[in-house]
This record gives sequence, C-alpha cells and structure tokens, in this order.
Amino acid sequence: MNAELNRKVFEDLSYGLYIVTSLNEDRVNGQIINTAIQVTSDPPRVGVIINKKNLTHEYISRSKVFAVSVLDERAPLTFFGPFGFRSGRDVDKLAKVQFKKGITGCPVITEYTLSGLEAKVMDQIDLGTHTIFIGNVVNGEFLKEGRPLTYRYYKENLKGKPSVNSPTYSPNK
Amino acid sequence: MNAELNRKVFEDLSYGLYIVTSLNEDRVNGQIINTAIQVTSDPPRVGVIINKKNLTHEYISRSKVFAVSVLDERAPLTFFGPFGFRSGRDVDKLAKVQFKKGITGCPVITEYTLSGLEAKVMDQIDLGTHTIFIGNVVNGEFLKEGRPLTYRYYKENLKGKPSVNSPTYSPNK
Repeated sequence: MNAELNRKVFEDLSYGLYIVTSLNEDRVNGQIINTAIQVTSDPPRVGVIINKKNLTHEYISRSKVFAVSVLDERAPLTFFGPFGFRSGRDVDKLAKVQFKKGITGCPVITEYTLSGLEAKVMDQIDLGTHTIFIGNVVNGEFLKEGRPLTYRYYKENLKGKPSVNSPTYSPNK
Repeated sequence: MNAELNRKVFEDLSYGLYIVTSLNEDRVNGQIINTAIQVTSDPPRVGVIINKKNLTHEYISRSKVFAVSVLDERAPLTFFGPFGFRSGRDVDKLAKVQFKKGITGCPVITEYTLSGLEAKVMDQIDLGTHTIFIGNVVNGEFLKEGRPLTYRYYKENLKGKPSVNSPTYSPNK
C-alpha cells in the first residue's frame, strides 16, 4: 500500500445498498452490503463481497447460496440499520422482518424492498479480509416499482455511517 | 439459466460510471464501465469487470495494470459516449481527451473527472464472457470536488443506452 494514497478517491465510487441473506440448515441470517454487482449477463451472474468476520460469510461458504434484496429508497434507517451493525451471532436479525423463503431457501426480504434475486455460488476469490462470491442467478423476483436505495443516499440523506467491516470502509475517517 | 428469471431485478442494482484505461507498450486505450468496485479496504483493492471482446481486456491481460477515472456528473454524453460505443481497434479514443500518465503508465483522464486510481492486477476470475480483474491500488489522485456520475443518472438524465458488451446488458430490451 502506498502511504501517499489519497483514500478520498474511493468515496467517488458509487454503490447501491442491499440486504444479502443466506442460511445454515434451519437458521437464516442477513447483513447490509453496498458491494453487490452483476458480473455477466449471459448467463446472469452476480457477485457479493463479504467480510470473513461476518456470520453471513460462514453461511454462504457452507450453503453455497445467497439472496440479494434491493432496498427501496424509502426504507428507514431504523428498518435496515440493525442488519449492518449487529451480528447474527447475537440476535436473530430476521425475527421482526417480513420475508419469504426463495427457491434456494434463502430469505428474500419483502418489506421496503423493490426486488430480490437468488444465486448459487459458482466461484469465489479470497481477497484477504473479504471474499467475493460469484453466483449463478437462479431466481429473480420483482416486487414493486421504486427508486433503489443508494449508498450515496444513505450517507447524504439518512446520515448513515459506514461499517468497519465493509470493503469500502476508510480507516482515515 | 432459469427461463422464468425476471431480468427487471437487475435494473435495480446501482452503479457508477467510469473510464477504465490500460496500455500495451506505447499504446493506450480506455472504455466506459459501470462495474468498478472497491473490494477491500486494507489493503485497498478494486475490481473491474471487462468483456473479453474489448481491446481494454487484452491490454489489462498483458500489462497487468489499469486505471479507473471517476466521471463528473456534469460530463456530457458527447465527451464519454465514444469510450463506450467505439473500439480502440478502430480509433484512438484518447486522441482528443486530456489525460496524464500515472505511475503505472496508464492514462488518468483529467477532463470531466473527479478522481482517478491506478491498480496492479493481483488476481482475476474468468466469468465466461467477462473477466473480473482484482487490483492492488497503487495510486489515488483526487482532482476535484463534485458529484460522481452514476449509471442511473446516465440512463435517466442523459438518456444513455446500455452497451451490448456490458455485464449488466439486458438481452430482453
């Protein structure tokens, strides 16, 4: 790493904000990520980047499936905040949230959510602190029209804070 | 691939819009991508997803370096459009664009650009039609304050079209 590196440049990259979920036998868990991305169109594949410390990382590593729920811009911080700042080891983060189980068994959130997709892991890269899981998309559910919540909107309008476990966390702030 | 898959869900994912550049000996090239993403914070690493058909893919594969220039929301379509819809095999896409060569030799665009970063490839995944190149960020240059151009702004305000070579291209539209 270059000590002179101006980390401010990273703040210019744009992201959405999503709840990624997975399962471990009969237990389910989810967390907020901004780093979900479509990686190919044919076949449709998506990638998610998850911190190795997070319980969702353990669940995806074992089950090889995950779901991504795209949050509505109107979602309040009180709704999705707990997904970002609490661990599924301490609390059932889905206990008070409406969701349905998809074809992979992963929960697809149905509150404050525009759409959801489910994927089966076909490859992954160890990135050190994080893993990128690449999944073949096996299900896509469009729930309602609306504006997707972005990470910029979260920071500017909801005054949301970054998570220390995010791949886009800046240690200088 | 699931024939029932509702591709509308993919349109809910959020992206920025960037010019990614690379070099091949004394030649340089660049293209528009929406799929650039920070993948870890410590060390700082970014990923870019490039179609194998694109000249920039060939350049990054050989040189193992790339730069990402973050476009200003005020950048006109006439400025960056040619980066998306012409091939560097046919035209020197940087001939009329202001840039400086970074420490990797890659061009960092300096017009209509908020910031630029340079990376050295440390890993990659073959995604079929595309490759994701993961790079250690070796330089970051903050050029000016401003709002980064997003893919949503490009579609909604500039009435921009998707590129058939993009990982987020929808064949149904």
